[in-house]
Amino acid sequence: MKELKINPGRVKKKLIDFIRSNIHKKGFERAIVGLSGGLDSTTVVYLACEALGSNNVLGLIMPYRVTPRSDIIDAKDISRKLAINVRYINITDMAEAYFKKVNLKDKIRRGNKIARERMSILYDQSKEFNGIVIGTSNRTEILLGYGTIYGDTACAINPLGGLYKTQVIQLARFLRVPKSIINKIPSAGLWRGQTDEGELGLKYKDVDRFLYYFIDEKYTIGQIMKKGFSKDFIYKAIDKVKKNRFKCQLPKIARIK
Amino acid sequence: MKELKINPGRVKKKLIDFIRSNIHKKGFERAIVGLSGGLDSTTVVYLACEALGSNNVLGLIMPYRVTPRSDIIDAKDISRKLAINVRYINITDMAEAYFKKVNLKDKIRRGNKIARERMSILYDQSKEFNGIVIGTSNRTEILLGYGTIYGDTACAINPLGGLYKTQVIQLARFLRVPKSIINKIPSAGLWRGQTDEGELGLKYKDVDRFLYYFIDEKYTIGQIMKKGFSKDFIYKAIDKVKKNRFKCQLPKIARIK
Repeated sequence: MKELKINPGRVKKKLIDFIRSNIHKKGFERAIVGLSGGLDSTTVVYLACEALGSNNVLGLIMPYRVTPRSDIIDAKDISRKLAINVRYINITDMAEAYFKKVNLKDKIRRGNKIARERMSILYDQSKEFNGIVIGTSNRTEILLGYGTIYGDTACAINPLGGLYKTQVIQLARFLRVPKSIINKIPSAGLWRGQTDEGELGLKYKDVDRFLYYFIDEKYTIGQIMKKGFSKDFIYKAIDKVKKNRFKCQLPKIARIK
Repeated sequence: MKELKINPGRVKKKLIDFIRSNIHKKGFERAIVGLSGGLDSTTVVYLACEALGSNNVLGLIMPYRVTPRSDIIDAKDISRKLAINVRYINITDMAEAYFKKVNLKDKIRRGNKIARERMSILYDQSKEFNGIVIGTSNRTEILLGYGTIYGDTACAINPLGGLYKTQVIQLARFLRVPKSIINKIPSAGLWRGQTDEGELGLKYKDVDRFLYYFIDEKYTIGQIMKKGFSKDFIYKAIDKVKKNRFKCQLPKIARIK
């Protein structure tokens, strides 16, 4: 996948500068990150520590009833390794209070509620820590709309938003993120057995290449087919991009004049 | 306040078109609004009913422990009067579960958590109703940042965002919103005794005029002083505008190239 190859040293430097300068510009020294034990949030805390110093970083671990124990252990291990501040808030009580009240069974709706619960706690805890909320969505997720609006996509600054998932992996390797985290099967962790690629119905290594040609290089569908993508794949991916574009937009406000 | 005078018939028509066309453009017929019993949300449901038909509108009433009974009654009365769909979800259990867990006493942080809880329920219920979330923030609130980011400011479309509070009042009179609601003291209702003007330290009739000159007409501070505003007032208002501008911005994403 030479198209998606990054210079990880250069990218690392850029993202550290990005985090530091944006947080200082806002008049802050500190940052808070929701730590899932997955690749993206781990990569973000690695960068945040270099940008701000580990004592200025808070990792918030917010497991829900179905969160795998191994993810919690990974998140704690990373926090210990990097010597950041950690806070642990189990969100099961809040989530279940709502699910019970409205008898919510649908797993996607439950997942979205959980993602928004985490956002609201992250923002509340950012006040206590006096820090800025750093988001962890990557470019693949943003373009495909694979995320919850006003949930995991909500943040003040997002260092990974310009990197496709396969590029985050390259950066993480360079940062020496533990292999066990890099090799973990990507999952939003909102219900048991959920995986990104299963839910999207697309493999990151394929869809990243596709998005590169379709969005960055503005290839036509015909040109993209010549790169080895099937019509089915292309339509499925374009459909996601179009359908979810609203997730990256501000509320539309009526003009009066 | 001749500066802020609107043509309510023209504005009404514009906003009804705005709601209808934007919701249809998104492929929807229906809309959901968080109904507090206050002026802004009441005005929005009046407009939504004319735009979509009352059977296509859901008013979601989400009281918290401190919500005045009179507000709940007003919200129910409006729903009945307009014959919209209503759903009633008390958020106390979800909010208290969090407040207890982290022993949260700070009333502003509690208020923000509540606003975000309401947003997350509004979005969840919008799935069940198959509708679009209509926001109710007015231009005064948006410019002063008087609202919770990813809370009450979060929505898909916002018909009142171009109208100052004093202009919403003019529109509401024209729409024949009950006087008891128009004359209610504006409050976000997040804690007992909270009022907008008390918390802002500014009166709507003054700050709306100020914002009109400062933002819309781009007057200098000197010119604004000639309109009868004190330096203290001006600095206080400008401070709010600047400090809260981040609430209207998308997350800042790092560029890699």
